[in-house]
Amino acid sequence: MLRYLNTRGPASRAAIAAETGLNKTTVSSLISELQARGLVVETGLRQAGAVGRPGRVISLDGATVGALGLEINVDYIATHGLDLTGRTLIDRRIGFDAMGSDVDRSLERLVAVVREALADLAAARLRVMGITVAVPGLVNVETGTVLYAPNLGWRDVPVAQRLAAGSAPIPVRVDNDANLAALAEYTAGVAAGTPDLVYLTGEVGVGGGVISGGRLLRGGDGFAGEVGHLPVDPNGDLCGCGRTGCWETKVGLAALLRMAAPDHAYGRPDSGPVRVPEERLTEIERRQAAGDPRVEQALREIARWLGIGGAILANLLNPRVIVLGGYFARFRGHLIAEAQAQLDRLVVAGADARCQFVASELDFRAAAHGAAHVAVEQVLADPTMVAMLPAKSQPTWRRR
Amino acid sequence: MLRYLNTRGPASRAAIAAETGLNKTTVSSLISELQARGLVVETGLRQAGAVGRPGRVISLDGATVGALGLEINVDYIATHGLDLTGRTLIDRRIGFDAMGSDVDRSLERLVAVVREALADLAAARLRVMGITVAVPGLVNVETGTVLYAPNLGWRDVPVAQRLAAGSAPIPVRVDNDANLAALAEYTAGVAAGTPDLVYLTGEVGVGGGVISGGRLLRGGDGFAGEVGHLPVDPNGDLCGCGRTGCWETKVGLAALLRMAAPDHAYGRPDSGPVRVPEERLTEIERRQAAGDPRVEQALREIARWLGIGGAILANLLNPRVIVLGGYFARFRGHLIAEAQAQLDRLVVAGADARCQFVASELDFRAAAHGAAHVAVEQVLADPTMVAMLPAKSQPTWRRR
Repeated sequence: MLRYLNTRGPASRAAIAAETGLNKTTVSSLISELQARGLVVETGLRQAGAVGRPGRVISLDGATVGALGLEINVDYIATHGLDLTGRTLIDRRIGFDAMGSDVDRSLERLVAVVREALADLAAARLRVMGITVAVPGLVNVETGTVLYAPNLGWRDVPVAQRLAAGSAPIPVRVDNDANLAALAEYTAGVAAGTPDLVYLTGEVGVGGGVISGGRLLRGGDGFAGEVGHLPVDPNGDLCGCGRTGCWETKVGLAALLRMAAPDHAYGRPDSGPVRVPEERLTEIERRQAAGDPRVEQALREIARWLGIGGAILANLLNPRVIVLGGYFARFRGHLIAEAQAQLDRLVVAGADARCQFVASELDFRAAAHGAAHVAVEQVLADPTMVAMLPAKSQPTWRRR
Repeated sequence: MLRYLNTRGPASRAAIAAETGLNKTTVSSLISELQARGLVVETGLRQAGAVGRPGRVISLDGATVGALGLEINVDYIATHGLDLTGRTLIDRRIGFDAMGSDVDRSLERLVAVVREALADLAAARLRVMGITVAVPGLVNVETGTVLYAPNLGWRDVPVAQRLAAGSAPIPVRVDNDANLAALAEYTAGVAAGTPDLVYLTGEVGVGGGVISGGRLLRGGDGFAGEVGHLPVDPNGDLCGCGRTGCWETKVGLAALLRMAAPDHAYGRPDSGPVRVPEERLTEIERRQAAGDPRVEQALREIARWLGIGGAILANLLNPRVIVLGGYFARFRGHLIAEAQAQLDRLVVAGADARCQFVASELDFRAAAHGAAHVAVEQVLADPTMVAMLPAKSQPTWRRR
């Protein structure tokens, strides 16, 4: 019912019954339930073209209920607050050196960010129904435990449990950043609605989120899409995971900095205060503008390896679109043409397989956006998770 | 209704109505329809535990309706005839040098095999409702055209159209061999019911069929699972596809022969009469038994590369099982332990991702078996494709 109203817009009880095929008693009963939870309102709005006394119509009252999405990554924490109608209430990112912090400090900071966001959303009179946290690593979605996040240095961290202390009774879910970003792209991004797409996080780690046949590809344990550690070069560099020649050593943000601006590379003790990735990218763009040949050369090399790895994804998953996120999107003008040429050369199906690289428009916000979206979807799928309002505050009839 | 009877077994009309939630008039009407098509029969069979006059029960009469699956590969054509109850009526394979034949000769031979099989099934009083052909290459499933099958040397071959001439009015479908084999494994193989599995054809070409979340992964154009041309070694050999270092140059059957028994390798002009792969494998086993060190060395090398490529599949798709088909299954004892060790070493999720190599028990018959199964599934899904019987031959009541 909720999803129906969300898609269709306001409707009378009679119209709802006729269109859903439910009988009128069922419709009335469901609407009472949703009213009691503050999820729909009854208004006297006249429907377009209708004559006579204004009929009563039922509308989604999603502005009072919402969800919070977060992402913790190597050098930032992102927050996205969303109400049921899809309106964004919070969209911010702070620099945070998760790579250089121990797990406890990172989780403390994450809890503080959650508390602040919840306070802001409460001030905006939004009831938050769910929190989803995106993490660049392998996640046990059932338990909310991060099993392994190499670029954060995390192993077996019970994130949901640790956050629950600071957010109870709101349920906390944890999921892979690339999976959540892929869902954000599939629902609201540049390739929205494309049933076969891959999203690549362009960060220090390179993760993949795969939508196949319109569904998120999870695999047996929820670990599908681990593209960053594809072995692409037996003679390559040592990776953070302990192996050699992984794809992310060729195309990750750390590789770009190492090649284009070694004095700003990750992991240097003298690299100064924590910066969100954009500040490093601005520095690279400044050098590129000043004619530093290392930048062009680095981008060419990265584009080539993007195409080589992209062809592996195209052969195995046959997506129509590979959405480039993070820093890849920022440098789209220097990466996409060369990467596409490599991919076209290497894909077995050749021109029959029409797989295109496109740049995300969600920048580094895709995962947090997807995280909030997942939590909102859960309310639409199961409105009983929203508590009944106290009787006195239940709206009965309101003229808009 | 048909699928229900297939799963549940014989049942009375009343039981069917109660268990399916359909009303009795609908049940009776559906059963009349299915009787008229010769798909169910009404018998006086007494149900276990019932007392009094034997009730009439409805049973699937699948023994008169069936489907034909075929596979054409580099050196053989396989045929599998199946009735609706799952009984195998034909299961045979002939040696045929498709690699060395031109497209027309291959298709003529395929048509001859189809005609022979249809004659045999007609003699067994089976009405064949569908034909599915498995091909080791990229297939446009909508049109039944093979776009590219490198190891057969085929490009843009309209297989369904060419076969229709010899099999009309039976509909012909064409699909990728590994996809069909994966479906066979998922429904009736060693890992049946595992919702996340990958099947690898161990032939000259190495194809992959991916079941993810219980569904065949097709991708945007139906080309997903093209594992044979994963670039695994930039310094490797030239592949049949024109690229360098593809996975199948490391683990395909041609690689085994080249390393273990070069005088029996594929493509030698003096290699004698056409042989199904087993004959070549028997020769290799003979040499292994005689202590030829090249065989052990070749199998060790293949096992190592199986693990390296398998880890790519595990990282991207996170299957619980990788089913080894074709020649891999025959040499399971020499391949699985080493391949598993490599995979375990390379998978990012490590022990959290429990992905096991297992050997298929369907040998080189998996794709033809899956092809027949797909055609049977179509009848179960849409019995209206089965024509009404002439009125005089419609069974009404039959005592078994």
